[in-house]
Amino acid sequence: MVQESSSVTPVPMLKYDLDIVIPTIRDLDFLETWRPFFEQYHLIIIQDGDPWKTINVPEGFDYEIYNRNDIIRILGAKASCISFEDSACRCFGFLVSKKKYIYTIDDDCFVAKDPSGKEINAVEQHIKNLTSPSTPRYFNTLYDPYRDGADFTRGNNFGMQESDPTRENPFTMREGAKTVVSHGLWLNVPDYDAPILVIYRYVDAVMTIPKGTLFSMCGMNLAFDRELIGPAMYFGLMGNGQPITGCDDMWAGWCMKVICDHMGWGVKTGLPYVDHKKSGHPFENLKKKFNGIFWQEEALPFFQSVTLPKECTSVKQCYLELAKLVKEKLGKVDPYFIKLAAGMVTWTEAWEELNPLN
Amino acid sequence: MVQESSSVTPVPMLKYDLDIVIPTIRDLDFLETWRPFFEQYHLIIIQDGDPWKTINVPEGFDYEIYNRNDIIRILGAKASCISFEDSACRCFGFLVSKKKYIYTIDDDCFVAKDPSGKEINAVEQHIKNLTSPSTPRYFNTLYDPYRDGADFTRGNNFGMQESDPTRENPFTMREGAKTVVSHGLWLNVPDYDAPILVIYRYVDAVMTIPKGTLFSMCGMNLAFDRELIGPAMYFGLMGNGQPITGCDDMWAGWCMKVICDHMGWGVKTGLPYVDHKKSGHPFENLKKKFNGIFWQEEALPFFQSVTLPKECTSVKQCYLELAKLVKEKLGKVDPYFIKLAAGMVTWTEAWEELNPLN
Repeated sequence: MVQESSSVTPVPMLKYDLDIVIPTIRDLDFLETWRPFFEQYHLIIIQDGDPWKTINVPEGFDYEIYNRNDIIRILGAKASCISFEDSACRCFGFLVSKKKYIYTIDDDCFVAKDPSGKEINAVEQHIKNLTSPSTPRYFNTLYDPYRDGADFTRGNNFGMQESDPTRENPFTMREGAKTVVSHGLWLNVPDYDAPILVIYRYVDAVMTIPKGTLFSMCGMNLAFDRELIGPAMYFGLMGNGQPITGCDDMWAGWCMKVICDHMGWGVKTGLPYVDHKKSGHPFENLKKKFNGIFWQEEALPFFQSVTLPKECTSVKQCYLELAKLVKEKLGKVDPYFIKLAAGMVTWTEAWEELNPLN
Repeated sequence: MVQESSSVTPVPMLKYDLDIVIPTIRDLDFLETWRPFFEQYHLIIIQDGDPWKTINVPEGFDYEIYNRNDIIRILGAKASCISFEDSACRCFGFLVSKKKYIYTIDDDCFVAKDPSGKEINAVEQHIKNLTSPSTPRYFNTLYDPYRDGADFTRGNNFGMQESDPTRENPFTMREGAKTVVSHGLWLNVPDYDAPILVIYRYVDAVMTIPKGTLFSMCGMNLAFDRELIGPAMYFGLMGNGQPITGCDDMWAGWCMKVICDHMGWGVKTGLPYVDHKKSGHPFENLKKKFNGIFWQEEALPFFQSVTLPKECTSVKQCYLELAKLVKEKLGKVDPYFIKLAAGMVTWTEAWEELNPLN
């Protein structure tokens, strides 16, 4: 069932063309801490697990909830591409949104504070990241040159448009690339494979992940340009009925990065932080991710060496080509990848059905 | 003339197998601020400009000074590869050192403070960077996993040796690569092409610059493993008698990075910071670097596409191959590059003469 709330409390903040996607199995009390930053946006809640359970959402939020029954009703046979009992189910929210931007956040992530004690508006920083250029073709040692305070007077004698305050980037590199993904970080409890205690630091930086370099994307505090990169933001087949769980975002990140590199687009990482208060016991998480650890060793070399043909000029074309290559190359390693490749194709079909225009 | 000081004040700090190389044209009063951190090391001072001028060095430092006459006396005809009236002359110090590590610093760089107000021991941080692995084959969004406090209990169940505290790096990537260059940053006044006001932030991070990605190396706060990468740390032909000045470190950085990528070694950037108090007027610097701005546009595409043959298994072989390619490819663009390529060959000969063993 789709629940719609009726009232939105107006707040004096900028509102962007953005939906917030939250995968969950429980009441969303965590939204209370986000009220000043989220209340003006529409929430798309993907209810994982028992579809008969009622998920309580604090008063005053504008939201819709999709449970497993809704997903099957909307997608029919294509619902097979949406994972169950894994946060990979979040990507269903990307399919049904009609907004330009998506911010997806886990229900164990809370508002973090910057070193001055000020609460961090994660949406605002993600939008800043997404609406300013990236520098994927050159490594900027002084971090994001497009950031406030790191910028400079425009229109000087050198014909620079979007320019760099230092000689960091050679001049022809300064225009930068379109940013399509903003990967936010987290404080306190890391999202880990193994039970390891770590001290985390607030690092006041936004970086572009260079072209040709892969990273481990984390889905818990992630924003992207749905119009541009949406069709590549499929979180794979994980959880119930699958040999793997908890590697959904890493998989999506590798697929997405290879496609961004091909399209000439940029991916940023760094600010904003959220406070991650992981609910599960580390050992339980370890057990759940165990298969994924070995699986990475097979998949990563594939992504490090894959190249997409020039003929692929749209994200959808790239994604289908990638699905074909996953089947061909990784299918030999484990039949799971043949199933996953089929899921990628089904996802693309579902995207086309629900988003005929982009 | 080579001046040697006789007394070294012992200080209760670790001493590494490191020389400090300083290019200068003036008295080295700036060393006073560095006394607690530099006094236990040998300084190699490269006196640029008028060789008859006396450079005063504060009491208590262990140093030797080489002026232009010394360079010509020591290198003979090969002195042609050492620039004059440009900080590129610093690389003569790398030639004559016999230490494992080099730290080179400009005479307008002072001790910076971290956000807690503590003076930063730049040497100590550079050594930390150089003696811990890099991760050039994967982008670590949580910054340097080998840093204190970001590490974890070794020898756990997963057979990891040098490991990552998170699932950031897939397990086979966790061993990391040998770090050979540590590129420190600066606060306050940037080293820029153009007269632009910039606010700089202290960013508490050390990053590996990914394989295949170039950056603009700055020579003012730079450390490296001389034994391994020394032969590639040639700062080119700049300044007096050359059409270009002030691009020495950028050139060296591109050559060095291409070779490190080929050798499988890592380059880090970030901490430590120094306070850069630039003495010249920005407009003067602009004028001096003007030719360099356009020159970059020719050289960068060359470095972005160059690949070294597998047969090159030593830094010296790589460097000579690179010199050959510079002559072939960039020589067509401007005859300056033919001269520069010859300088690269002469540098290698000088290195072999003064460092027959490495």
